[in-house]
Amino acid sequence: MTTHPLMMDFYELTMANSYFEQNRTDEWGVFDYYFRKIPENGGYAIFAGLENFLNYVKTLKFSDKEIQYLRKMKLFNDGFLDYLSSFKFRGEIYSFREGDVIFPNEPIVTIKAPLIDCQLLETYLLLSLNHQSLIATKSARISMQAQNKQVIELGARRAHGIHAATYGARAAYIGGVNATANVEAGYQFNIPIVGTMAHAFVQSFDTEYDAFQAYAMTYPNNTVLLIDTYDTLESGLINAIKIHNDVLAPIGCYLKGVRIDSGDLAYLSRQTRKILDEAGLSKTQIIVSNSLDEYIIKGLISQNACIDVFGVGERLITAKQEPVFGGVYKIVALEKNGHVIPKIKLSENSVKTSTPGFKQVYRFYDEHNKAFADVVTLRDEIINANEPYVLFDPVNPWKKKTVVPFRVKALLNLVWSNGKSITSIDDAIKARSNAQQGLSELWPEVKRLENPHLYYVDLSAELWQLKHDLIAKHTVRN
Amino acid sequence: MTTHPLMMDFYELTMANSYFEQNRTDEWGVFDYYFRKIPENGGYAIFAGLENFLNYVKTLKFSDKEIQYLRKMKLFNDGFLDYLSSFKFRGEIYSFREGDVIFPNEPIVTIKAPLIDCQLLETYLLLSLNHQSLIATKSARISMQAQNKQVIELGARRAHGIHAATYGARAAYIGGVNATANVEAGYQFNIPIVGTMAHAFVQSFDTEYDAFQAYAMTYPNNTVLLIDTYDTLESGLINAIKIHNDVLAPIGCYLKGVRIDSGDLAYLSRQTRKILDEAGLSKTQIIVSNSLDEYIIKGLISQNACIDVFGVGERLITAKQEPVFGGVYKIVALEKNGHVIPKIKLSENSVKTSTPGFKQVYRFYDEHNKAFADVVTLRDEIINANEPYVLFDPVNPWKKKTVVPFRVKALLNLVWSNGKSITSIDDAIKARSNAQQGLSELWPEVKRLENPHLYYVDLSAELWQLKHDLIAKHTVRN
Repeated sequence: MTTHPLMMDFYELTMANSYFEQNRTDEWGVFDYYFRKIPENGGYAIFAGLENFLNYVKTLKFSDKEIQYLRKMKLFNDGFLDYLSSFKFRGEIYSFREGDVIFPNEPIVTIKAPLIDCQLLETYLLLSLNHQSLIATKSARISMQAQNKQVIELGARRAHGIHAATYGARAAYIGGVNATANVEAGYQFNIPIVGTMAHAFVQSFDTEYDAFQAYAMTYPNNTVLLIDTYDTLESGLINAIKIHNDVLAPIGCYLKGVRIDSGDLAYLSRQTRKILDEAGLSKTQIIVSNSLDEYIIKGLISQNACIDVFGVGERLITAKQEPVFGGVYKIVALEKNGHVIPKIKLSENSVKTSTPGFKQVYRFYDEHNKAFADVVTLRDEIINANEPYVLFDPVNPWKKKTVVPFRVKALLNLVWSNGKSITSIDDAIKARSNAQQGLSELWPEVKRLENPHLYYVDLSAELWQLKHDLIAKHTVRN
Repeated sequence: MTTHPLMMDFYELTMANSYFEQNRTDEWGVFDYYFRKIPENGGYAIFAGLENFLNYVKTLKFSDKEIQYLRKMKLFNDGFLDYLSSFKFRGEIYSFREGDVIFPNEPIVTIKAPLIDCQLLETYLLLSLNHQSLIATKSARISMQAQNKQVIELGARRAHGIHAATYGARAAYIGGVNATANVEAGYQFNIPIVGTMAHAFVQSFDTEYDAFQAYAMTYPNNTVLLIDTYDTLESGLINAIKIHNDVLAPIGCYLKGVRIDSGDLAYLSRQTRKILDEAGLSKTQIIVSNSLDEYIIKGLISQNACIDVFGVGERLITAKQEPVFGGVYKIVALEKNGHVIPKIKLSENSVKTSTPGFKQVYRFYDEHNKAFADVVTLRDEIINANEPYVLFDPVNPWKKKTVVPFRVKALLNLVWSNGKSITSIDDAIKARSNAQQGLSELWPEVKRLENPHLYYVDLSAELWQLKHDLIAKHTVRN
């Protein structure tokens, strides 16, 4: 991957330069990445983008040409530009695993580093994690509605550029789709790819039959025919069955599938299934596409559509319904002379007030191995399984509940230190299995499409107290 | 720019391989890129992405490693893989200029090339043009509502990856914003960049005053202070004015601006203006941000908000309201033995039926130099200014009108032939000026936000006849 060291908001550089001029190059801060609202009022989100972000951290380096560009602005201190040319990230990164289930208002990634380093990483961190978590979450929603059917990702042509197409395909795979049409994603991330034919292929032959014949002869073991160029039931399906009988069956092959890309998919798929079955082609798959998403898939299944594979394009790759994952990156502490000083950002909207301090997140599981709460604590707090623990709502702290977690798991673990990753970073395949596992550990009520149950994300008593002390202090001071 | 030769849907390769096996490597086709619906029911769109696409065409080359990846699938003909390793686009590209105003159902780019070449280019063409036209169009909508005020693009952190951030910033600039915060976009495309400070900067100091002082000392000629970290009017604004008086004025400098990123922007901006004016700082600019788009900006202006610069983030860089530009790429003709055979794709929805043939688009201007209609013709038709021309609605052809265009302009011009671009390709700055010019040539009724006037896109009589002959022919045959 090429690095793009200048892929950042300009203010990261103006702030960094000002820190430099203030002789604050060795002053450390702690920043949290977290989000406040699950897209589409869902019950959960899936974390993605970590491998991409860590690869950026690993390769981040400013070339002479880039320094030259900055120097020409006559805005930056020469010493600062020298500092940039030998820049190497000096801090630590704590993170959830890629593919983990995540909830609002818990730190998902924490950066502990010199203030300058914290700022220089901000834009790339936000854009990679926000984008990829958005698509992984959408993919999980769609895959869940498709139940035990296959879902394939076909959105490249409507993606927001090549990075969105390729990293979007990777995130979609993590979230649950089975394969992508994007060859670059297959090549880069070793994820399964699929593809058949476009209408143009059919149109380029004199007849639909000729087009199908050519394709079947090229791919006798992978013959999937697009049957809606002229008329799905009256022409495409009839020609597809002929091709099976004329071309494939004689050489011991079998028509793998037919694809329908337009029309009433519920009706057409049921008719197609019936006609295929009557022709003895009960194993031929029916693949559909055309602006599908989780809502339409749910509707198709409820109408007993006969569909084996859902092809999902623009509504997945752009997360069309809500194309923004609002993750933010906020300073939560400052290290001065070895002391950690918690920091808070107040807001008129109290939900938007950040949670201060260097923190950990514990996930609580019950005896069925289902997760039922996440608790955000200060970094050095320890929570033990099989011991009573008082959960309380951080907004309405009088709402209390004593629980005995069967198992607790610390989610925010050190992944980067001393210039390198300290564990092997999960690839797309492992991240996908993390997601599958995390989703299987949620109660169905949290996963449903409409009005999901709100999963608890609470603060430890100690952290809650710290936050409210700081709020009180600021309210007096300002 | 790195090429990504595998950045394509897998079916481009399976189709190309099948064409190869059918000995159709030298058979040429004509494909059109066009779109059917303007996002957000707008009256116009802005074309962008051409430079990026042509750069792809120029650099497209399959390396051994990529061929190796394809070979391992055991799906492709060895001859085809050899063909790919020496692939170089052999065709011609006709296109609108980047930045041009575009309308539905007219060809914006036409590719005339071997069928295989046409397919291999499809995915990248669609994703670059769709994405960048989407953002350029959104930017034009936003910039228009901002009237004579500045608009800056701040969306990188919510963009769908780095390509979306950087090419999105470029497209936003083409569409009308004045600058971007994305340094990479400034570096790559020579467009203006801007940036100030984040809340974290303010929080990293003991007091807000200290933070402002540090920033003003670093950037005495570019002091823009973020005043909403603690309390906009009670703290931030007061400290900003103090900084002007204590730090800037004594060295002959002036507080350039204050930025407000939260709260009621109409109220806060009016109050801020009043207080600044009373402090003698009438030239200090007020910059606002926080989920702005064209609708909110229109509302702010109607409330007499005192805003000099609108910072627009996620809603521009993702085109949040409608994040898909539905451009398609359809075969419209086939060349066989030197003859052009027009092709059509029927659809139950007659509006979705493609327009066949190798074509040209003429824009008609009236005596005020305002554009009032585009007419799609066959490639060799000539339309002259100052001669009567009968326009008719292609859906309701009895609706006729004879016009005498004061000026006509052919929009679809050859830009690529014999392996290279045949004219200099417009850069972002020229494309922006194309857009400004094109927009100034539209009547205000076409540009308004709600229920814009529908601009005419008609077919010539000859083309209309060809289309309807083909429809009739197919309806009989199938």
